[in-house]
Amino acid sequence: MGNETVLLQPPRTRVLIVGGGFAGIHAAKGLAHLPVDVTLVDRRNHHTFQPLLYQVALAVLSPADIAQPIRTILRRQANSQVLMDEVTGVDVAARTVTLGSGSQVEYDYLVLATGATHSYFGKDEWAPFAPGLKTVEDATEIRRRVLLAFELAERQMVEHGWHPPLNFVVIGGGPTGVELAGAISDIAQLYMRHDFRHIDPATSRVMLLEGSPRILAVYPPDLSAKAEAALTRLGVEVHTNTHVTNIGPGWVEAGDKRIDAVVTLWAAGVQASPLGKMLAAVPPGSASPVELDRRGCVLVDAHLNPAGLPNVFVLGDLAHFEQDGHQVPGVAQPAMQMGDHIAKMIAADLEGRPRPPFRYFDKGDMATIGRMDAVAKVEWPFKAHLAGFPAWVTWLVVHIFFLIGFRNRLAVFAAWIWTYFTFTRGARLITGDQRLPGWQDQIDAGPTAPSETTHSELR
Amino acid sequence: MGNETVLLQPPRTRVLIVGGGFAGIHAAKGLAHLPVDVTLVDRRNHHTFQPLLYQVALAVLSPADIAQPIRTILRRQANSQVLMDEVTGVDVAARTVTLGSGSQVEYDYLVLATGATHSYFGKDEWAPFAPGLKTVEDATEIRRRVLLAFELAERQMVEHGWHPPLNFVVIGGGPTGVELAGAISDIAQLYMRHDFRHIDPATSRVMLLEGSPRILAVYPPDLSAKAEAALTRLGVEVHTNTHVTNIGPGWVEAGDKRIDAVVTLWAAGVQASPLGKMLAAVPPGSASPVELDRRGCVLVDAHLNPAGLPNVFVLGDLAHFEQDGHQVPGVAQPAMQMGDHIAKMIAADLEGRPRPPFRYFDKGDMATIGRMDAVAKVEWPFKAHLAGFPAWVTWLVVHIFFLIGFRNRLAVFAAWIWTYFTFTRGARLITGDQRLPGWQDQIDAGPTAPSETTHSELR
Repeated sequence: MGNETVLLQPPRTRVLIVGGGFAGIHAAKGLAHLPVDVTLVDRRNHHTFQPLLYQVALAVLSPADIAQPIRTILRRQANSQVLMDEVTGVDVAARTVTLGSGSQVEYDYLVLATGATHSYFGKDEWAPFAPGLKTVEDATEIRRRVLLAFELAERQMVEHGWHPPLNFVVIGGGPTGVELAGAISDIAQLYMRHDFRHIDPATSRVMLLEGSPRILAVYPPDLSAKAEAALTRLGVEVHTNTHVTNIGPGWVEAGDKRIDAVVTLWAAGVQASPLGKMLAAVPPGSASPVELDRRGCVLVDAHLNPAGLPNVFVLGDLAHFEQDGHQVPGVAQPAMQMGDHIAKMIAADLEGRPRPPFRYFDKGDMATIGRMDAVAKVEWPFKAHLAGFPAWVTWLVVHIFFLIGFRNRLAVFAAWIWTYFTFTRGARLITGDQRLPGWQDQIDAGPTAPSETTHSELR
Repeated sequence: MGNETVLLQPPRTRVLIVGGGFAGIHAAKGLAHLPVDVTLVDRRNHHTFQPLLYQVALAVLSPADIAQPIRTILRRQANSQVLMDEVTGVDVAARTVTLGSGSQVEYDYLVLATGATHSYFGKDEWAPFAPGLKTVEDATEIRRRVLLAFELAERQMVEHGWHPPLNFVVIGGGPTGVELAGAISDIAQLYMRHDFRHIDPATSRVMLLEGSPRILAVYPPDLSAKAEAALTRLGVEVHTNTHVTNIGPGWVEAGDKRIDAVVTLWAAGVQASPLGKMLAAVPPGSASPVELDRRGCVLVDAHLNPAGLPNVFVLGDLAHFEQDGHQVPGVAQPAMQMGDHIAKMIAADLEGRPRPPFRYFDKGDMATIGRMDAVAKVEWPFKAHLAGFPAWVTWLVVHIFFLIGFRNRLAVFAAWIWTYFTFTRGARLITGDQRLPGWQDQIDAGPTAPSETTHSELR
């Protein structure tokens, strides 16, 4: 046991990739035909297609539709191996990484792509009351809460003749918040219409709270406005300039307003994985220490290196990369492109050529808003701002195309066709605990609870 | 809150069904066109197609492929409602059922179909070390353990050059045990062949322990022999006359033998749901009290009534029903037929006719053994004992046919085709905790652990 040093495959150049997200998988696949030995370490056994995670949370897709074992993705790539383990330390001087068990793995190149997680801005005590959406477990937890809310309301209605208001509060008006709010509205308005006898799911309220003056703040203002209009048509109440000050079991406070919430979801903040901090802490007397931004992302240069570490690459959401004076956003596209770029740089090193600099090629951004609507800022192959049905179709095609694995594409496409035409969600399972935080408090407070807030009060 | 009496829909005959398994769902659907009001209560929101649960446990299917919301199954049935709640008491004198919240629901007819759960024969402390397979949660827990075993072994091999033996022990040689053992052998021998670089999954051992002299003891002896031969061809070590005396983290004891086990599964015993006991406890001074068998199943007459309770029906695995001197087995077929029979009896009551007695029509039994093999005792439309590929095809057709929901049939069929031809399992997700009970003990004991048992030692 203990601190043994393990030689993985000594004779060839060893590339150690940490993280099996978009950046890590693209880096590994790009290295397939180079004379290097690749080890990909991830603490999970699967790669998750995060852009569709919200569809698992809202019962359209099953977890396995959007997740695939990393091992299977790389099974035919002879120069690569996968290790399911956690990285607990990095020693850039000794060129080793420490794993969960205490063992150390040596590398010639280190590729860090461990991404980001949600940040409660220091209020981690909010986490149990407002789950975020980053992992398959998060998605099934959100699914559990949303579906359970309707079941508990029906039960309460049958047994006591009333139920607390079904208010769903989504905090954060970025793409994830917009997609979650639209999808909850969809499920309440359309997909559960014939399922209940005593409650009307369509009377539930969905509130989207955003601190800044507009939702989708990284999009052009016209698309933000179109997204807000589309959400409003779906019945979502969009509250901009609304700062959440506290969250508890069954309620959210925004300034002096209190909103009863049967389910609260967090889509407001992200922070880089702790690996950035480990890297910054490492070189004790280093001339140019590794710098982090305020989210914990590692500042990298045009070769995706942190200062002074030419054989360490930081990619994806963990990287802070600036191009033309702007930070490249933490989304799937730059992560994939950064991953693809790794092989080009290592190949250049092996052949003694100078490394090509990385340049992000932005093809655009998009977010769905419920059943048939979306907004898209297209940059390539033409420039356009799309909204409505055309944006939605574009979104469909792009997301099916980028899903890893033929089986997953088929399964997701079949599930979408089914969902679209039958108004049925195929994965409406409640598993695990059958309680909701704060539900019993709301029942005990009775039908005339003074804290019930109406739309106008919140405005 | 508290003990209010709730009138569901007073004017019509009220049928209260407890349990949304095969018996409960068939009972509810059968009552669709009778002038009665049906309430189906289940503590879960979904009906589970239990015969395919082992395929969720072994990563072929997703939970949503074999589970469907009870609410969706009955969504178009206007005389029926669904309540997700637990039943905590039955008062046959007052004709009420107590729910989890303390509320009471009145009934005119009570249909109890809450099934069975696994029994550790009084050794409930074994449960964390040897999970059984009754629910979707059980299946994902077994999936987690089996997949994690290979990942941990690969990690241990990379980091320390050896790993504890990959012994999978399945306790109980009934259909579930046989199907689990065959499917684990399949996944180890065939489906993971190209995925690992340091371990050879095919060197893992699968042991099936059965206390009685033959596996599939309820089948004819020739099929038991064929099933044992088929398992042996797959590499499963079948140990009959082997009584498990103790189970702990990472080991199983059978008499004076101790087997190291990376994963232990329990398929040995079932006991009736506690509702049987509640019913038996109810009539205090009753002339003919409700009788239970040793598993807690309720003895019922030809009208599926417990003694002296003509408006209470007990169905499915919860019922002990004898026909021609034999107890009808606790499997899907009799449960469905009993469910279907409920409407016939209630219709007879409503029309003032005598109730028709229930008669179980046995079409046969079958169990799969790995990828292309099965045994089937066919009783209808012809009598035959099938084994091998013909039995397997029969099994496929029957199971697709009985799956509730067109979408599920399509999804399962597609997953099977995919799995069969690509040797890939589509749902290989490890979620939740990333430890296995006893794994660290086995590592700490080192590569020459004295408790390692070989096949010949166990014999």
